[in-house]
Amino acid sequence: MMTGETIGLSDRGLTLGDGLFETLLAEDGVLRDVAPHLARMAAGCAVLGLPPPDPAQAEGRLRQALAAAGLLGGRAAVRLTLTAGAGGRGLDRPEAPVPVLFAAAAPAPALARPAHLILAEVRRNDASPASRLKTLSYLDNVLARREARAAGADEAVMLNTRGEVACAAAANIFWLSGDVLNTPALDCGVLAGIARARVLNAAVELGLVVREVRAGPDALREADAVFLTNSLIGVQAVGRLAGRDVAQAEIIVSKIRTAAFAAFA
Amino acid sequence: MMTGETIGLSDRGLTLGDGLFETLLAEDGVLRDVAPHLARMAAGCAVLGLPPPDPAQAEGRLRQALAAAGLLGGRAAVRLTLTAGAGGRGLDRPEAPVPVLFAAAAPAPALARPAHLILAEVRRNDASPASRLKTLSYLDNVLARREARAAGADEAVMLNTRGEVACAAAANIFWLSGDVLNTPALDCGVLAGIARARVLNAAVELGLVVREVRAGPDALREADAVFLTNSLIGVQAVGRLAGRDVAQAEIIVSKIRTAAFAAFA
Repeated sequence: MMTGETIGLSDRGLTLGDGLFETLLAEDGVLRDVAPHLARMAAGCAVLGLPPPDPAQAEGRLRQALAAAGLLGGRAAVRLTLTAGAGGRGLDRPEAPVPVLFAAAAPAPALARPAHLILAEVRRNDASPASRLKTLSYLDNVLARREARAAGADEAVMLNTRGEVACAAAANIFWLSGDVLNTPALDCGVLAGIARARVLNAAVELGLVVREVRAGPDALREADAVFLTNSLIGVQAVGRLAGRDVAQAEIIVSKIRTAAFAAFA
Repeated sequence: MMTGETIGLSDRGLTLGDGLFETLLAEDGVLRDVAPHLARMAAGCAVLGLPPPDPAQAEGRLRQALAAAGLLGGRAAVRLTLTAGAGGRGLDRPEAPVPVLFAAAAPAPALARPAHLILAEVRRNDASPASRLKTLSYLDNVLARREARAAGADEAVMLNTRGEVACAAAANIFWLSGDVLNTPALDCGVLAGIARARVLNAAVELGLVVREVRAGPDALREADAVFLTNSLIGVQAVGRLAGRDVAQAEIIVSKIRTAAFAAFA
């Protein structure tokens, strides 16, 4: 159903949000963490009951998108999208769905200040497997980000339906309490972020105690530092939460950033 | 970004499930309940922060889709889709989003037997406003329906995150207990169905007590009848739930069906 830069109107990615995506960083034309991103998409396909993309084809799409956008120098964001493909009316997939795969590249966003966060009203649905995947049904995240922008903030912390911290609209979240680095457990409704995994490994190497936890938002207010991670921002410090300054243990956060992304340097 | 039967790959409906849809019944070329369907889409646009479609244009799209599909006789399902339109990278919408509107028609599904239901594992996110809208982020409903099909059933009952009955994957749900007709309250994470409203009004006219409630799935097991509603099926009886037969108060359900959809006869 794909024709150049368009997709068919009956595609289930469009009509039902039935599909997945990945967003990768490219630096000077080099794609970062391709293998774990493609492995995560394949794992998501297994959860959704879709055939996974061929890794070589997927990587080819990413490279073509980078080149086509003229982004072989500098930092670029490359998105790979997989839809469940063309479908008839209603919720049921065709017997043998034929996924559609495409990629697009854009300049990576520049980071200005330590992020200002709000607590979003909209909650993360930890009672759906989709909460642990990067799916095309991303409207809750769009709504959370809209809440942040409406409040003059950069990003929104999403709690899950039990009131536990899950993530930001487009990032995983960490907080440091003494020598303990905390991040929400995956069963809080959390994407297994590629940058999240890098940070967890780096923190262990730095001698920090790492905990994947269930915690309410008070834990963020009381922390020595809060930061966000995703493949584009790496580690981004948080400066404010819900209108109040957040402590910033800058030296240790900087060490974590360096250790987590040293391989890229 | 629309060209004939395709849509641009950067459309936010495709990339993020950012948009809404409506499904209408047409009988012999006559669209049913056009005004309430378009009013509901406009209300959904207000929640999402999108400009609503022009009603005359929307109705025109529906009529064109019916004619183009050669479905001016018999029963047809006509779907109207509104996306947030073309967008750049990331979650933030452009300053002034330009929605894309399109319609498609297909033969309406034929109903065979009283529906067999399962209780889905995936839950309805009552903690998101999207749970009360018909959005393009419909993956949880797709997953619920997949659970039903995997169990050899027709449809799935979705509980919300508090364990209360919310709806089926593609229908509202009602149950009769004596002369009391129950349906989940909207704040359970329920779409304000057009057929649901017809049934509520009809039940009052028939002298039934109508209650919009918060109730667990045991209420369904103990009911005198359970039925589903949406614009295509009207009132569909339920025959089995989670592998057990459900009582069927056929006479009163038939009266409700007739009273609710008499205007169509």
